[in-house]
Amino acid sequence: MSQSLNYAVFGAGSWATAIVKMLCENLDEVGWYMRSVYTKEHLLKEQHNPSYLSSVEFKTEQLKLSNDINEIAEWADILIFVIPSAFIHTELQKLTVDISNKTIVSAVKGIMPETGKLVGEQFHDVYNIPFENIAVIAGPCHAEEVALERLSYLTISCDDAKKAQTIADALSSDYIKTKISDDVIGTEYAVMLKNIYAIAAGMAHGLGYGDNFQSVLMSNAIREMKRFIKKMHKMKRNINNSAYLGDLLVTGYSTFSRNRMFGNMIGKGYTVKSAQMEMSMVAEGYYATKSAHDLNQKNKSKTQTPIIDAVYEILYENKNPKKVFTKLTDKLD
Amino acid sequence: MSQSLNYAVFGAGSWATAIVKMLCENLDEVGWYMRSVYTKEHLLKEQHNPSYLSSVEFKTEQLKLSNDINEIAEWADILIFVIPSAFIHTELQKLTVDISNKTIVSAVKGIMPETGKLVGEQFHDVYNIPFENIAVIAGPCHAEEVALERLSYLTISCDDAKKAQTIADALSSDYIKTKISDDVIGTEYAVMLKNIYAIAAGMAHGLGYGDNFQSVLMSNAIREMKRFIKKMHKMKRNINNSAYLGDLLVTGYSTFSRNRMFGNMIGKGYTVKSAQMEMSMVAEGYYATKSAHDLNQKNKSKTQTPIIDAVYEILYENKNPKKVFTKLTDKLD
Repeated sequence: MSQSLNYAVFGAGSWATAIVKMLCENLDEVGWYMRSVYTKEHLLKEQHNPSYLSSVEFKTEQLKLSNDINEIAEWADILIFVIPSAFIHTELQKLTVDISNKTIVSAVKGIMPETGKLVGEQFHDVYNIPFENIAVIAGPCHAEEVALERLSYLTISCDDAKKAQTIADALSSDYIKTKISDDVIGTEYAVMLKNIYAIAAGMAHGLGYGDNFQSVLMSNAIREMKRFIKKMHKMKRNINNSAYLGDLLVTGYSTFSRNRMFGNMIGKGYTVKSAQMEMSMVAEGYYATKSAHDLNQKNKSKTQTPIIDAVYEILYENKNPKKVFTKLTDKLD
Repeated sequence: MSQSLNYAVFGAGSWATAIVKMLCENLDEVGWYMRSVYTKEHLLKEQHNPSYLSSVEFKTEQLKLSNDINEIAEWADILIFVIPSAFIHTELQKLTVDISNKTIVSAVKGIMPETGKLVGEQFHDVYNIPFENIAVIAGPCHAEEVALERLSYLTISCDDAKKAQTIADALSSDYIKTKISDDVIGTEYAVMLKNIYAIAAGMAHGLGYGDNFQSVLMSNAIREMKRFIKKMHKMKRNINNSAYLGDLLVTGYSTFSRNRMFGNMIGKGYTVKSAQMEMSMVAEGYYATKSAHDLNQKNKSKTQTPIIDAVYEILYENKNPKKVFTKLTDKLD
């Protein structure tokens, strides 16, 4: 592929690493910003990320690596942010170069806890990026399966269909199929909400509920997601498309899912704190639960979200998971 | 529960056994017809079904057991049929008593291969049962989890809402929650179609596709199911309700699913014949695939059913699973 636009990935977690791998299938050079000097040095020396998807070997001559966010932001035309929502605020404070004429792609799986805004909204408001220059990458796609080159599908959303297609083309390969969508806000909410439902699925499993209940939970979750997103951004969308239902399922059912694992530990009796320590990371859905709950509360005509409410009560109000779920089962059908 | 109506179950497989167990939670006496003399004798002597859900202990004084289909049919007011679709035709030929004034409940997971009709339609046509006396029991519900008394949800469909509620009440208990629906035809098609998609899910797994693809397959399957059912019987329904999406998920994702297991073996390279021999049973979805395919072919304005078509080509046209799935992946999104 002849490369007229410079693509860069910001972040070095597993999803960021997977996206760099996808881009390397097509592009001569891929920009990659990471905070950690050690990760950068390790990548240069050993050709793989020391902490995430370490089986993926990179050709370092294809990578433009840097620990300086401004260097990469200046160089790139298409900036793909893949930093956990809890840290993106801090990272963006380092950004001093003008990015108002760049295209911003969010592959962040959450809302920024400091502002309660979607990442796209935040870029629009703070960096004057017009909405037609903001895109979202949605799954269903576990990074671990990208590493294994197992067939996966992505949805790229952007108000500007041509731009969406350009980004989709840069990500497509033998093992990545892409489609485009104009539902930027809806897909970004879906990416966030599914992590809450994955926590709920994990909790149910930890509490001893079986496959029969799990399927009822997921069937209620997709209806709840539809109501929630519709309230936030009304437009015609098929909630059963891969970017919404598919992403919910891959996260709710997969053993790779860190959110499900986190919920499972809570269901089994771990405290929130001890589960987070045990996992040595914070599941995105933990923050998403608070953001979604607060957003819905703020809404004048709030929608029924019994599953989000249940997860919120357990994670933030210290309520007994068993009791909360017993009540929840009466609200599902 | 004071018992004014006599309920009877016809069949002695795992799903039949689970339904008898549910009824025994509420009723003083439950009729139970089974073909096998051995199974009946074993039940009387050992208090459990020798072949299915053998961990479930029955109080035999609660059971009205018989190997005579007419005896039980005569006695019962509500006849619940739970015989595999491939055998129900033969069983019904033994039926000589008049059942035209009885309520017929189908818990058969398929179409009758001899006639291409839903079980409800068959009873309507052959036994003059009015449609308001025909009901369907839909999941999502693996019998194995009923045996473990794990919380499960059922949907009872009947044109007569009061009748649906009566049957639902007879099945409800601490671990069984029920809801009613007026979509008799739609839920019966869903019960059948989900087995085809479970075979597809198993094939994908056997061929080496991962969780990312599986979620895309399921997201496409529910859209295909919606189109198919709408073509057969147009009415307002939420395809994401438990009886449709929930049932699809529990079958497509669960390790209990015999259809998924069957598909998995085909995907791994077994022939249809050897997979059936290895499992010592025929997966319902095998017949459902032909029925659904033929029904759609007969339809003048047939709907797009790429997944059903793919499974059909593999099972009935002896096509190479790997090649068929490679083509299928291009039709999904």
